[in-house]
Amino acid sequence: MSPNYQTRRAKLRRALRKSDVELDSLIISGVANVRYLTGFTGDSSWLFLSSTSCVLLSDTRYETQLADECRDIDVEIRDAGRTINDLAAIVVAKAKSKYVGFEADHTTVTQHGALSEKITTATLVATSDLVERLREVKDQWELTQIRAAIEYAQRGISVVRSSLRSDQTETEIRYLLEAAMRSFGAAGTGFEPIVGVGPTAALPHAHAGRRRVAEHPVLLIDWGASTDSGYRSDLTRVFITGKPTKQMELVYKTVLAAQQAAIQAIRPGAKCADVDQIARGLIARAGFGKYFGHGLGHGFGLEIHESLRVSPISEREFETGMVVTMEPGIYLPGKFGVRIEDDILVTADGNEVLSNLEREFDEAIVPILA
Amino acid sequence: MSPNYQTRRAKLRRALRKSDVELDSLIISGVANVRYLTGFTGDSSWLFLSSTSCVLLSDTRYETQLADECRDIDVEIRDAGRTINDLAAIVVAKAKSKYVGFEADHTTVTQHGALSEKITTATLVATSDLVERLREVKDQWELTQIRAAIEYAQRGISVVRSSLRSDQTETEIRYLLEAAMRSFGAAGTGFEPIVGVGPTAALPHAHAGRRRVAEHPVLLIDWGASTDSGYRSDLTRVFITGKPTKQMELVYKTVLAAQQAAIQAIRPGAKCADVDQIARGLIARAGFGKYFGHGLGHGFGLEIHESLRVSPISEREFETGMVVTMEPGIYLPGKFGVRIEDDILVTADGNEVLSNLEREFDEAIVPILA
Repeated sequence: MSPNYQTRRAKLRRALRKSDVELDSLIISGVANVRYLTGFTGDSSWLFLSSTSCVLLSDTRYETQLADECRDIDVEIRDAGRTINDLAAIVVAKAKSKYVGFEADHTTVTQHGALSEKITTATLVATSDLVERLREVKDQWELTQIRAAIEYAQRGISVVRSSLRSDQTETEIRYLLEAAMRSFGAAGTGFEPIVGVGPTAALPHAHAGRRRVAEHPVLLIDWGASTDSGYRSDLTRVFITGKPTKQMELVYKTVLAAQQAAIQAIRPGAKCADVDQIARGLIARAGFGKYFGHGLGHGFGLEIHESLRVSPISEREFETGMVVTMEPGIYLPGKFGVRIEDDILVTADGNEVLSNLEREFDEAIVPILA
Repeated sequence: MSPNYQTRRAKLRRALRKSDVELDSLIISGVANVRYLTGFTGDSSWLFLSSTSCVLLSDTRYETQLADECRDIDVEIRDAGRTINDLAAIVVAKAKSKYVGFEADHTTVTQHGALSEKITTATLVATSDLVERLREVKDQWELTQIRAAIEYAQRGISVVRSSLRSDQTETEIRYLLEAAMRSFGAAGTGFEPIVGVGPTAALPHAHAGRRRVAEHPVLLIDWGASTDSGYRSDLTRVFITGKPTKQMELVYKTVLAAQQAAIQAIRPGAKCADVDQIARGLIARAGFGKYFGHGLGHGFGLEIHESLRVSPISEREFETGMVVTMEPGIYLPGKFGVRIEDDILVTADGNEVLSNLEREFDEAIVPILA
């Protein structure tokens, strides 16, 4: 099985025709969007797509790589004396495009100004989320990649779990996890792993540092793997490495109950904000409402955060084929934090939890020799 | 020695007052710019600066981290029910700002639209490069960090050089290099290291893959380290691991001569485009002009590519305190490529080459046992 880029581009062309605004072509500048539509693994390159043409705008650094990775796509290559906007003007004029869309989410105000100056034969039209919407629903090939990324992550954490020592630092754990995932075939991590002991675990986005496992019974690890094809996984587990207090147990079980209740509610047509509220409400009723400030989950795939957000202000509904994280947390500043995160596939009759690591409180207890 | 964020912010306030356009405050959204001005190591956060106020706009994930990292700065924290644009509107109104700048290079067209909707009490004004210009000239503390990043990188490559084996893959070399740099104290790599054997070395931005050292005598490594403080280094060396052909020797010596001639010309007041032309002209006269397509160098520091570009279309001049790479290359598609890259500090009377690894052709020869 391999990705069918032509099918993806055909879907995008259909989306262009159905768009609310008049468009006869689109400049795609989001790096992951370009990769999704072409298989090109470089950056600094744009895809120009109209009903009849498909051209990658790139530079000499990527000339050979493009010939190798994108055999069926025309390319327009610039040297150091020209900008990518010059190339865009050329292909837009050549395609006789009159209304050319650009990705407003991936185009800075400066880039837009420069592009507007160069493109004199067509009107630039802001678009949003056209490719991201396609990417939200994963195809079968993408699901095999995401399942592989989850498998690398799960095998990696099992090495870490069985190797935990009281004198290990957060950073040492991070490196061990990374090396283990690579040894199983991962291209690398899906993002910079978060490894936090005690008070560091109370920082939702902490960097791994110099705290040692023995300093506190709570160890939080938020990690994922990436595949050679660029797909990611995103998981979080908490290990209790010493004797837990009643508060730790209560916090842990509250987070887990919130996660499980939210997952139960995921099915096609369910509103993201409603699913968020199930977890948020449960945590609030347990008295921890002000200690859960971030969103409940997000889409992922080629990027670790993709467009679908499961939060109180999301206006979206779940659809079959979407893949999201479910990751409620409770963070007690200066003390510790608990987050439990799994990866969920929305299916026609509900959902499938793709990750299957232990998550019960008793299973999280990994006593460490002193 | 530690960074003086207040001095940096004072310089930015001066730049605001001197700006061509009328501005009484600025919203800084570039991640590295925010870090440069405050020391905050998270993301998704903006800095609002006026003559009298200085506020970081962030979310609950970073509340504790901000209290720790930015003690002297006011913070405005949002929960998952509000956007950062809501916070921006609040602080702009509170500061009674009438003309608020935003960073057009770090603001997408979509973000700009959302921000415009929320900010009703002031006019939004596009700015460009205000903080980047300050960052181009490094202060003494930054230079200690960059020197450390170079030292980590140089020690790392010496481990790799002395460990080269014929059966090693590009990926294995990449991981060894990363581990070695970390063992010396680096926070990590400065960017994804490029490790290319033979034809892969002819791809200026190749990913390390499965080619083995024994496949071809040319091995190109483009790598750098990062410090805990976020500063980077960026170097490239080519190792000749087998018997070199005359062509390899010619290409190598041409690239080195081009690099050395260009470095000679770096001094305050020299034009970036002129320095680029020295290397580009020398390579062209040797008959390899069409095999050197990228720019000659770039600034670096908190980011691996910073605003100063040394290319044929650069209109800038060098200034004392700037730090740039010098990295000409010749890439023969399907055969091999050579790039030699060093890190240069512009000084009052010329420049200092901060990196001091061997770079002569004879020194690049590292024969490998079969």
